[in-house]
Amino acid sequence: KVIWTVLVTMLGYASSLPVGEDALCTAEELAKYRIIFTGKWSQTAFPKQYPLYRPPAQWSSLLGVTHSSDYSMWKKNEYASNGVRDFAEKGEAWALMKEIEEAGEKIQSVHGIFSAPAISSGTGQTSTELEAHPRHPLVSFVVRIVPSPDWFVGIDSLNLCEGDRWMDEVSVDLFPYDAGTDSGFTFSSPNFATIPQDTVTEITCSSPSHPANSFYYPKLKILPPIAQVTMVKIKKSQLGLSAPFINLPAKNNEIIDTVS
Amino acid sequence: KVIWTVLVTMLGYASSLPVGEDALCTAEELAKYRIIFTGKWSQTAFPKQYPLYRPPAQWSSLLGVTHSSDYSMWKKNEYASNGVRDFAEKGEAWALMKEIEEAGEKIQSVHGIFSAPAISSGTGQTSTELEAHPRHPLVSFVVRIVPSPDWFVGIDSLNLCEGDRWMDEVSVDLFPYDAGTDSGFTFSSPNFATIPQDTVTEITCSSPSHPANSFYYPKLKILPPIAQVTMVKIKKSQLGLSAPFINLPAKNNEIIDTVS
Repeated sequence: KVIWTVLVTMLGYASSLPVGEDALCTAEELAKYRIIFTGKWSQTAFPKQYPLYRPPAQWSSLLGVTHSSDYSMWKKNEYASNGVRDFAEKGEAWALMKEIEEAGEKIQSVHGIFSAPAISSGTGQTSTELEAHPRHPLVSFVVRIVPSPDWFVGIDSLNLCEGDRWMDEVSVDLFPYDAGTDSGFTFSSPNFATIPQDTVTEITCSSPSHPANSFYYPKLKILPPIAQVTMVKIKKSQLGLSAPFINLPAKNNEIIDTVS
Repeated sequence: KVIWTVLVTMLGYASSLPVGEDALCTAEELAKYRIIFTGKWSQTAFPKQYPLYRPPAQWSSLLGVTHSSDYSMWKKNEYASNGVRDFAEKGEAWALMKEIEEAGEKIQSVHGIFSAPAISSGTGQTSTELEAHPRHPLVSFVVRIVPSPDWFVGIDSLNLCEGDRWMDEVSVDLFPYDAGTDSGFTFSSPNFATIPQDTVTEITCSSPSHPANSFYYPKLKILPPIAQVTMVKIKKSQLGLSAPFINLPAKNNEIIDTVS
């Protein structure tokens, strides 16, 4: 362990360290990324209780942050902050934005905040740009599943830096999480606060192990991904004055994972 | 007219020119602003048919752009683009983002795009940063009124530049507009396309002049502002690495304009 730490320090290369730990990023500059979120929540892939009306299946705004390991937006098996609770339950971003701001001011653990517009259907895409810094190379974000009690998808502390360089592209499948703050079982469950609050848990095809659970598919081994996120580094040559958001892909509503 | 143009050129100062025209911005650098959107759509201020359920009164994501006078996101008394139609009717941002991207690529008329998270109630705030450029000093944005047929609030081509300097702060009251693409009269009207499409019109307390109109208040002279936007220039001293979004105000749900 000690030797490995020394090696890491000597080589300035820490790509093998677990995501979210104090992996040393020795890249020299800021990095800009285009982040593209793709909803894959189709009725074909998730036929059970698929919300069709008032509201139909859709995604909230995306709210994200680039930060150091001193900040955590949310973490599996830990308690959600009040800001994450408001966002996961209602799509209300203000409290979470304030939490991030305070982390930025008090412990200098945040580089920037970013958001992308909501998606008005279960399948579809949204996109924005984000900026990472060698001292703040981690990305976290949340997107609320609408409708739902307090379910969301997101990423926790993904490291965009590999030692002395920035990753060119990273793509991650996303699965649903329960914020642990509302005891609803199904997409359209009424609000019912979980007291005491539970931790953030992943929702799988077998957990919560109850037939009423909207994601309970006992014949499946794993759920298909309900969403996907791709971050693509923006090359300097693309950072023209009038082209800060090039590479927006064509809309593709046909990206559907089917349940076999 | 000729003399005035010469004067403007000589002085490098064009603050008296109408917003959206080719007012010359001779400021030297990029300018960053915090933009704060405040919803004032309370039941007190707008008691008629105020939406309480499925969905209750709320605001979509904010989608905006900084641009030159060669681009227009939307304009009163002109036809809405397909992107603005999708956004005003469904809060779907993708088509509008593509339109902005194309304007940026083809005619270099766009500097950057920005978005802020949705607000889950009629009163509340959301915020993000935007960057303007001397060649792209105009700001436009839209926020959909939810629920509604195709109603939105926004700003069209507000000039942040005054001759050789950037405005420190600008605040504007916002009133509802009809995108002219859906013929609903009330917040909860079912979808019914307007064919042929109508132009973008302001909704006032007397127009559309029909008692069924959700904003029809025959006793009022003008509607109270349904929202407000404030843009505050971020001082260079505040542009620290870890404080890119300072000055986020405390949440204030008490900001309510009442109908007397």
